[in-house]
Amino acid sequence: MRAAVITRPGGPEVLRVEELPDPTPEADYVRVRVRASALNRADMLQRAGNYPVPAGAPASIPGLEIAGDVEAIGPAVDRWRPGDRVFGIVGGGGQAELAVTPQDLLLPIPASLDYTAAAAVPEVFMTAYDALFPQAGLMPGERVLVHAAGSGVATAAIQLIRAAGAAAWGTMRSQTKRAKAAELGIEAVFAPENFAAELKAATGGPGADIILDFVGAPYLAANLDALAHRGRIIIIGTMGGADGPINLGMLMGKRACIFGTVLRSRSRAEKATLTADFGKHVLPLLASGTVRPIVDRVFPLEQIAEAHRYMESNQNFGKIVIRVAR
Amino acid sequence: MRAAVITRPGGPEVLRVEELPDPTPEADYVRVRVRASALNRADMLQRAGNYPVPAGAPASIPGLEIAGDVEAIGPAVDRWRPGDRVFGIVGGGGQAELAVTPQDLLLPIPASLDYTAAAAVPEVFMTAYDALFPQAGLMPGERVLVHAAGSGVATAAIQLIRAAGAAAWGTMRSQTKRAKAAELGIEAVFAPENFAAELKAATGGPGADIILDFVGAPYLAANLDALAHRGRIIIIGTMGGADGPINLGMLMGKRACIFGTVLRSRSRAEKATLTADFGKHVLPLLASGTVRPIVDRVFPLEQIAEAHRYMESNQNFGKIVIRVAR
Repeated sequence: MRAAVITRPGGPEVLRVEELPDPTPEADYVRVRVRASALNRADMLQRAGNYPVPAGAPASIPGLEIAGDVEAIGPAVDRWRPGDRVFGIVGGGGQAELAVTPQDLLLPIPASLDYTAAAAVPEVFMTAYDALFPQAGLMPGERVLVHAAGSGVATAAIQLIRAAGAAAWGTMRSQTKRAKAAELGIEAVFAPENFAAELKAATGGPGADIILDFVGAPYLAANLDALAHRGRIIIIGTMGGADGPINLGMLMGKRACIFGTVLRSRSRAEKATLTADFGKHVLPLLASGTVRPIVDRVFPLEQIAEAHRYMESNQNFGKIVIRVAR
Repeated sequence: MRAAVITRPGGPEVLRVEELPDPTPEADYVRVRVRASALNRADMLQRAGNYPVPAGAPASIPGLEIAGDVEAIGPAVDRWRPGDRVFGIVGGGGQAELAVTPQDLLLPIPASLDYTAAAAVPEVFMTAYDALFPQAGLMPGERVLVHAAGSGVATAAIQLIRAAGAAAWGTMRSQTKRAKAAELGIEAVFAPENFAAELKAATGGPGADIILDFVGAPYLAANLDALAHRGRIIIIGTMGGADGPINLGMLMGKRACIFGTVLRSRSRAEKATLTADFGKHVLPLLASGTVRPIVDRVFPLEQIAEAHRYMESNQNFGKIVIRVAR
């Protein structure tokens, strides 16, 4: 099979497309003919040598999500048959013509989505769903602030927040992306410099019940300031730095909570539970078009290095998809 | 009625016992003849002028908990009759011969407890119960680290942890108090300097599922280090300082949570819910003697200033009770 390969730690230039042996599905594993995958920030970190690959995942093939067709099944597979259209998160190895993954980490692709759209779903919608609902316990009527509102996770989160009867605000540097965020139903987008005061003014005082943050340390003080009583800050990235100051007195006074979350390092059992819950709660919203994957741009597998450069330029609004096969 | 009074912000010398008008119970409020109250760190802060008194509480009479007898009832009271032995948290004004409080913030004193013992229960056992169970979701088999293990909340927490089938470790400066902590069923007590490494060694690696912290900023880095995967740090005090550094990457990697909590500023409805839950879950343990209030020393109301000095000397193991009337 052809696969993207990280030939050594480094910049986008270390990526190659190479011919590798086909993987074999054992036990309850499924071999998927991958039609499309998508990029994630973790791919950049893995390429640079800064992201440990979970046990069982191919160390040198990037790609955390796939959409394609079941092509072969292990002897214990009872959920899928060859030809089924499937998508899901994988521990790695998604940017290859063939990927082997446990049967309970796959879901059926809704008929309304093609492979390109489907590949833009798993990581960002599962991350957003998991952070907002099982973890932060989002309820109707709550107010959510989503930083880096043009990112893949943010564009998924904004739609899920709206679909759940809650309201979303965002922060974004780029003026040009703001109109796109408005189309997703966001209430308002603030510049990062003064978001706490602006959000409190926009909400008439209380601030955010939930803050979804990818930036980390540089936003921590303002996040606490912008947080409502009993609010929850969810750290799903530290793109601006991990080490920063915190005022625990404010955390106490607001009876607030800060938690960190990460998807990739979870056990198969945890991922399977999340996949099943996601199938129950979000798949119907995708099937009906209530929420939809936001695809910014599609690169063929051969242009994987260009796709990395494009992500690192922060121009995208929504997902960068890698087309692996037609 | 006679009452302890904070005559102005300052040291223990600003405390006086004065004669004040008797309060009147309106609506569904109960007037309690207070037999005993107890000291809390918040009393020290309030005396120094650093703790806002919640609306409706007497601004100048300290005391956050009471044990005594119902002496008069408002016209809408349907739960209590004069003569009932009751105890509970109050928003303030507990260190007086009479205190007026909503009927749903009181519980019946178990027959096995005298007023002195009963007065040592509400604040610390409710705080520990609330932090460990509704908030941190303590489960059997979990490992809990309790800082300042000789404090009132800690001695309550250690017993509740044990009663719930979980294990408690502690930190403590004083060597002389450690034997007393052992009597409560604590696994081991560490010096504060190196607790993270010692706890990880003692637990065979994983560290603490829950950390109950009163110290704040100075312990934050070591708390994160000592925390197990999916662990929860509960900040219920910042005696060592509120501002400190945090590593959000470690929070993400451990999928951990830090939350702050405070009891006194909650609404009556929230306190009533907590009181009812506490009555259901902890009162039976107190009645059976499975958990018991730890009384360090009893001061008569007239010696309220001496009692404050004693608390500030950090000599106590367990609660400092104020005997208001025989």
